[in-house]
Amino acid sequence: MLPKMTTKQLIKLINDEFPQSAGLVSNIELEKEFLKLEMPTDNRHLRPGGSVSGPTMFSLADLAMYYLVLLYVGPKTHAVTTNCSIDFMRKPVPGKLIAKAQLLKLGRRLAVGDVLIYSQGLIEPVTHATLTYSLP
Amino acid sequence: MLPKMTTKQLIKLINDEFPQSAGLVSNIELEKEFLKLEMPTDNRHLRPGGSVSGPTMFSLADLAMYYLVLLYVGPKTHAVTTNCSIDFMRKPVPGKLIAKAQLLKLGRRLAVGDVLIYSQGLIEPVTHATLTYSLP
Amino acid sequence: MLPKMTTKQLIKLINDEFPQSAGLVSNIELEKEFLKLEMPTDNRHLRPGGSVSGPTMFSLADLAMYYLVLLYVGPKTHAVTTNCSIDFMRKPVPGKLIAKAQLLKLGRRLAVGDVLIYSQGLIEPVTHATLTYSLP
Amino acid sequence: MLPKMTTKQLIKLINDEFPQSAGLVSNIELEKEFLKLEMPTDNRHLRPGGSVSGPTMFSLADLAMYYLVLLYVGPKTHAVTTNCSIDFMRKPVPGKLIAKAQLLKLGRRLAVGDVLIYSQGLIEPVTHATLTYSLP
Repeated sequence: MLPKMTTKQLIKLINDEFPQSAGLVSNIELEKEFLKLEMPTDNRHLRPGGSVSGPTMFSLADLAMYYLVLLYVGPKTHAVTTNCSIDFMRKPVPGKLIAKAQLLKLGRRLAVGDVLIYSQGLIEPVTHATLTYSLP
Repeated sequence: MLPKMTTKQLIKLINDEFPQSAGLVSNIELEKEFLKLEMPTDNRHLRPGGSVSGPTMFSLADLAMYYLVLLYVGPKTHAVTTNCSIDFMRKPVPGKLIAKAQLLKLGRRLAVGDVLIYSQGLIEPVTHATLTYSLP
Repeated sequence: MLPKMTTKQLIKLINDEFPQSAGLVSNIELEKEFLKLEMPTDNRHLRPGGSVSGPTMFSLADLAMYYLVLLYVGPKTHAVTTNCSIDFMRKPVPGKLIAKAQLLKLGRRLAVGDVLIYSQGLIEPVTHATLTYSLP
Repeated sequence: MLPKMTTKQLIKLINDEFPQSAGLVSNIELEKEFLKLEMPTDNRHLRPGGSVSGPTMFSLADLAMYYLVLLYVGPKTHAVTTNCSIDFMRKPVPGKLIAKAQLLKLGRRLAVGDVLIYSQGLIEPVTHATLTYSLP
């Protein structure tokens, strides 16, 4: 199973087609079968107590899997999330979040993958998500 | 199992403690065991194709369950989401989203509930989520 | 959305095509949009401490949703489970389990539904499951 | 984070306390942070079409995580599954199933981990599960 786009082509596609999400993440890299990307967080993402909000982490997991699916199916941008199961395991610290996504299945109709999210400075993952995308 | 707060007390608590989420939802009502609340959506919540984004729906499901947990455990605001499984079943239309949440379990350590999200003008639910909260 | 089979036709189909599961459940009934069915449990289903095992409850949830999907799509027996999220909320007591399943979505490719499982003699549900079936 | 038991001690504990599950799996091994174990399947585990049943795979995922939790928390056998999200991604072939489980979080109250299940002879995983255990 080989990617159908480079990360460079992916970034261009995102800038052209999803300008509203283009600014959310940075440092998109494919390392072996893992897609890594980073999301800086600021005060808008915080919850009382200084924790990064659940919706922020959901957004990052969903974007990471979406980008990985695009890399492997090519620029068919109408893939949609049908299911996500997400575990919030530890409290992240304010600052950069790093997502590491991998595909577990790429079928004709469904893609399944999982994402671990790390909080810069913590060794253990803060969040784990498994997502299913329906392919057009 | 009876609520420990009224929706009026809940709304005051949210305004005092979570001003950043207070403006997101409106028309909070408890009808029998269901908590109903509404979230207006606008261009910021949209994805290409005019659909409301997944993170927007995740936020609504998570807020609905958080508010319902607060109603039943009282103003212990440190309840945190530990797990959410969410199914995106239909494409919502732009406009108002309506969430309907119910508790399935309220234990000493964990609360479990589910949320159906409707899109104004559509009969069938667009999203279903099951959430677990860890209680302090 | 109307069923394409009666529960009588469903029971005959199960007896003919899935004799190994036919004996597991009984009292299959469609009440409005809910499919109800019962599973007697005995020593084979128990875990240390006298609780009914998780796999037993998973089997019941999966069967309940499978039968409900068959009722609504007709006798296309190759529907397969693609995802299940299951919450074990309370310890069931040995004896009869009662499942109550409803469809939340019936699309061309995917069906989504949820199942509550009750333990005879307890008022509150012991288990909640959400399942996705891929339709042939 | 170091295990509190060896796999030898775990196997003895299982034989003593859960004789009904002791015979289900074999070749239990801890390789770095992964617990591997095997489950032979036979006709009792099959579904029409020759596929291994969902409940069989759920049982294997649940056992693998339970054994891994026991290894790390020590012989406190009252850990119970509170949530499982399971994706059935490919059809396994009859024969041996191999589970590979890892812990993602080991807290005071909750443990979270995920399990990949392989079907002997197939390269890609057939099933992925994420499980939460409540610790006594």
